[in-house]
Amino acid sequence: MLVENPNKIFTLNSFVEILSYAKSTLSEDIDVIEEVFKNFELGEIKSIPGAAGGIFYNPKLTDEQIENICNELCELINDKKRIIPGGYVYMNDIFYDPNILQKIAKSLASPYLDKKIDYVVTIETKGIPLAIMTANILNIPMIVVRKSARLTEGTTIQMNYIAGSSRRINTMALAKRSIPKGAKVLFVDDFMKAGGTAKGITDLMKEFEAEVMGIAVVMSTKEPEDKLIKDYYSLLEFDGIDEKDEKINIYRKKNNNVN
Amino acid sequence: MLVENPNKIFTLNSFVEILSYAKSTLSEDIDVIEEVFKNFELGEIKSIPGAAGGIFYNPKLTDEQIENICNELCELINDKKRIIPGGYVYMNDIFYDPNILQKIAKSLASPYLDKKIDYVVTIETKGIPLAIMTANILNIPMIVVRKSARLTEGTTIQMNYIAGSSRRINTMALAKRSIPKGAKVLFVDDFMKAGGTAKGITDLMKEFEAEVMGIAVVMSTKEPEDKLIKDYYSLLEFDGIDEKDEKINIYRKKNNNVN
Repeated sequence: MLVENPNKIFTLNSFVEILSYAKSTLSEDIDVIEEVFKNFELGEIKSIPGAAGGIFYNPKLTDEQIENICNELCELINDKKRIIPGGYVYMNDIFYDPNILQKIAKSLASPYLDKKIDYVVTIETKGIPLAIMTANILNIPMIVVRKSARLTEGTTIQMNYIAGSSRRINTMALAKRSIPKGAKVLFVDDFMKAGGTAKGITDLMKEFEAEVMGIAVVMSTKEPEDKLIKDYYSLLEFDGIDEKDEKINIYRKKNNNVN
Repeated sequence: MLVENPNKIFTLNSFVEILSYAKSTLSEDIDVIEEVFKNFELGEIKSIPGAAGGIFYNPKLTDEQIENICNELCELINDKKRIIPGGYVYMNDIFYDPNILQKIAKSLASPYLDKKIDYVVTIETKGIPLAIMTANILNIPMIVVRKSARLTEGTTIQMNYIAGSSRRINTMALAKRSIPKGAKVLFVDDFMKAGGTAKGITDLMKEFEAEVMGIAVVMSTKEPEDKLIKDYYSLLEFDGIDEKDEKINIYRKKNNNVN
């Protein structure tokens, strides 16, 4: 129950009811479980004391675990069969695989597990599976910003923004009722180039009086170095494709500015 | 590990290595775990005998559990605040909430857990979070059919189809490399009206020489009764909104034809 519902607090009484155990026996068992999770680096079982307290599973990864996942990803991506004419890299099989997404989502969520985030925000389409998996780790809902307003979502706020790399004007739209005022959000996406989308989301969130607490992406490009967004957390850095050697330049991102 | 990776087989040796246990002790422990899962109706721990064997977690729900989830969903949906002008019902908060999605995904996946499905297929956008959660339960990858071809996905197969209810012509596109020939797929979506999209997906899968083993949706409409697809599995039935009484007519779907 704890592992299936990361970051969700279960009261001790709820276990007493299910298991018909004495609380003291339960406490001893929880100590054992805590120890096992610690020894095998499976995240932490954390306790909150007091009447409203309980225990929850914190799936935070160690730096070493995140490092290993990033190296695994680089190896998976750096495969010349992925190169698509036009300088693109085929990655659907990665971003649509729940096993890989679990690992990426845990890596992206780890710095934000203690930050009391209310919503994960993403923009359609490719980042959605990643965003819902990250929302699942953080035990909070997801919000999907659309590229045009939908009849089925009621009143929406629409905004134009400039995609940083192409200098094209794009639209984003979000149902008015989707975020309450004062909400704290984490923006999650698969890819960041100049940061135009992340900047757009930040501006859109201001319209909703919501606060962007972090921007977390799987890959950011090396160029342009001067992005429209300064503080972001990226697992990998992409430095283009050597078309001659058929090599995809993808590395672990150093020097993250997690705010 | 078992619960985090439903339907994934772990060899006993992998546990022997991690735990430095004797295999006999391990077998006894697995018996205990099997018993606990059974007693608390948390799904099943299943064993595969033989050299290539191991154990895995089968998160199959009982009929009663699915029934309860459906009733919970009906209660959640039947709230007049959800009514949007034009006869729509606002449901983003449901389809973007990982806790609710987990329950829906388990309900949708349950009839297909033993059917050796290779891919969950969905069409953008609203069904994607549900589809990836269902794929996670089945421990298989997801495939997202796009509404137009993308540069970043390489060669695609495009197809026109008729949305059954509006009689409009729409396009669907899928990267050629996304599904191998002979693959068995489950189509997952949030909503089905006349079944035009499901029919379109079935036709598109024929182009890929893939086989649709099932069509699973959260809600199907009562009208038209004669849909373009005969065999589908739907959790709920939607019979429109009484605008006068501000009532959303949503019920448990009876008589499912699961193929």
